[in-house]
Amino acid sequence: MPVAKRNALYAQSGGVTAVINASACAVIETARRYRDRIGKVYAGRDGIIGVLAEDLIDTGRETPAAIRALRHTPAGAFGSCRYKLKGLEESRAQYERLFAVFRAHDIAYFFYNGGNDSADTAWKVSQLAEKLAYPLACIGIPKTIDNDLAVTDNCPGFGSVAKYVATSIREAGYDVASMARTSTKVFVLEVMGRHAGWITAACGLASEKEGEAPHVLLFPELAFDLERFLARVETVVARYGYCAIAVSEGLRDPEGKFLSESGMRDAFGHAQLGGVAPRIAKLVRDRFGYRCHWAVADYLQRAARHVASSVDVEQAYAVGKAAVELAVKGRTAVMPVIVRKSDRPYRWTIGVAELKDISNREKKVPRDFITEDGFGITARCRRYLAPLIQGEDPPPFRNGLPVYVKLRNIPVKKKLAATFRV
Amino acid sequence: MPVAKRNALYAQSGGVTAVINASACAVIETARRYRDRIGKVYAGRDGIIGVLAEDLIDTGRETPAAIRALRHTPAGAFGSCRYKLKGLEESRAQYERLFAVFRAHDIAYFFYNGGNDSADTAWKVSQLAEKLAYPLACIGIPKTIDNDLAVTDNCPGFGSVAKYVATSIREAGYDVASMARTSTKVFVLEVMGRHAGWITAACGLASEKEGEAPHVLLFPELAFDLERFLARVETVVARYGYCAIAVSEGLRDPEGKFLSESGMRDAFGHAQLGGVAPRIAKLVRDRFGYRCHWAVADYLQRAARHVASSVDVEQAYAVGKAAVELAVKGRTAVMPVIVRKSDRPYRWTIGVAELKDISNREKKVPRDFITEDGFGITARCRRYLAPLIQGEDPPPFRNGLPVYVKLRNIPVKKKLAATFRV
Repeated sequence: MPVAKRNALYAQSGGVTAVINASACAVIETARRYRDRIGKVYAGRDGIIGVLAEDLIDTGRETPAAIRALRHTPAGAFGSCRYKLKGLEESRAQYERLFAVFRAHDIAYFFYNGGNDSADTAWKVSQLAEKLAYPLACIGIPKTIDNDLAVTDNCPGFGSVAKYVATSIREAGYDVASMARTSTKVFVLEVMGRHAGWITAACGLASEKEGEAPHVLLFPELAFDLERFLARVETVVARYGYCAIAVSEGLRDPEGKFLSESGMRDAFGHAQLGGVAPRIAKLVRDRFGYRCHWAVADYLQRAARHVASSVDVEQAYAVGKAAVELAVKGRTAVMPVIVRKSDRPYRWTIGVAELKDISNREKKVPRDFITEDGFGITARCRRYLAPLIQGEDPPPFRNGLPVYVKLRNIPVKKKLAATFRV
Repeated sequence: MPVAKRNALYAQSGGVTAVINASACAVIETARRYRDRIGKVYAGRDGIIGVLAEDLIDTGRETPAAIRALRHTPAGAFGSCRYKLKGLEESRAQYERLFAVFRAHDIAYFFYNGGNDSADTAWKVSQLAEKLAYPLACIGIPKTIDNDLAVTDNCPGFGSVAKYVATSIREAGYDVASMARTSTKVFVLEVMGRHAGWITAACGLASEKEGEAPHVLLFPELAFDLERFLARVETVVARYGYCAIAVSEGLRDPEGKFLSESGMRDAFGHAQLGGVAPRIAKLVRDRFGYRCHWAVADYLQRAARHVASSVDVEQAYAVGKAAVELAVKGRTAVMPVIVRKSDRPYRWTIGVAELKDISNREKKVPRDFITEDGFGITARCRRYLAPLIQGEDPPPFRNGLPVYVKLRNIPVKKKLAATFRV
């Protein structure tokens, strides 16, 4: 008896990255190699919301070249969303709807590409499938620039942000150094990672020799100590003539309050719209009178496919490919993860983790990755981070700009009578 | 009788760029090919301040490989400064000091690499040399990310910023588009160019097809019209689901006041430290409630050698080389400039301009380069800008990061008894 050929569904979840589409590329390309087992590969438009709304995309309508181009295209080609399913009871209607859509479209493979919230959702879906005796391979695919997933050695998406921020602060450091005598002495770069300081730590890779930028890192894991910070800046400026600082958007004061929320008001008394970098710059300027500049990289950092890490691209592809291979082997409630075999030379392989071990856990920067004074990274941290930014994998350029693909995203005909209000 | 072998002096001026060192590289490499005419090549440490202070650097102490590496190293390898010499009478002591240093170090060639202020200074120096019958080839070398120099078709430094900002807003646009359904709908990128909107215009290159980011450009040349802007944003969001905006740091309200200065106060009532992007984001959010994100690229944009335009690098090198060739031909009070021969295919050559025609003039974006509604660029503008971002010329990478050179910058022994207070 031939194996039944059933359909697959892929959805992107949460904040997008420079390489999440490389995972999508791998899922689709690999599924196309299992045509005997996997029929259509659908994608949820704007992630799980598209699944709930039965707004599915038929990836089979895209050319192999378009799918291949996903490998070098940043952001979410099918759309993503921030929409968390809660407990099975609390979000019962959502879960029931998911299965109604699965049944209607004969989905036997569900790939959910996201962070720890998504791993949790995927795990719950797998549990419910079991309870309902619905045959489903439910596979998580890791993705997050924050690098905060448990079990996996690192997260696809992080390496490219890491490479971008380290490159950027190195370049800005050269700029400030050359102008510091008469102009800007202190430069502040604000980076993402509200709860975990991995991106902040990655900035530290740019400083390979004594005195090189950045000189101060401000981690969300450590409470901001104003006086110690200012003393440090003063010492650095005295020693090197300038100071480059990388600060996490999630920096908090000793009371646990975000610095970006502390005290700035507009003319109407409303709290200021974000930005810890201008706040830090102001604190330095007010104390020392140094001319300060600041940058907020925001989405530029997580979309910067033009300077992606090739290790990151390869790993994003590898987890997507492994997800499909696990699914056709009949595995469920698992996530392919990155397992480090050695630091130097860097060797890694794909392992398998249980979704329940990943869901809702958050991996912060360990204290021994941060220097004792709290302002730098240790050799141990450097050994961990260094491999993740290795290699360049530039996209094709046309007219001087990177060429990214825009898919046709042709909808799948709806089969359910009921609509669902998301 | 052999031609006397005399020394050259090179100085960098004003804000640095991703390619000003490519001009420095060309000056030094070309001078080394005229060893029969040019003896030492000195550089002012931190620009003209180093010249005034008789703090000169002997570039002859650098290896050919180090000098070669300047071609791919951003910022100012010898240091730069913001220090403007005023009129010959007003700044008489400075000008006299310059000539004292020239005499002491047998300087017959002076290369001043900067914007229109520097062209003005170089021109005054050339006038004074003539008056003093001091034989000096005084050559300006164009440099400015602002692209606002007169006569030259474009300015070395601009093409690379243009490529960086267009790449960045394209990438961020993909990011926002993929999340807009449930998350950020409006993204604002603040770019440099306080008085001239060339960098803002360059962002427009990323939008090659209807609907592509960026959707709104805010030029410093046009007074900000809040209601027309908000109406435009609303239309764009309704049509495309999201809106990407590029705004010049120099955007002004109809009263001529910088938007970055309008109304934000901290807890002590002090004006907020800069940032027009958060201001624009707040205006949009307050009106429509859209979730907004913003980025301020600041020095990241002008230091981004990792994504430099190869046309820009070549032109920066070409003007440096031409400067030396003009000098050995006995020219003075001139600047090599870029002359466009055709748009498509792009062909250019090096011409010669009089310094007095460049000094203190500012080339803004012409009105017919901006669409009638004020929010975009015209085909004419695109035809002008497009060639300037062509080609990639990545630096070497090591350990996943661009490798930039740090020169030894060994000082030349002082010869003057008098010190000079800058």
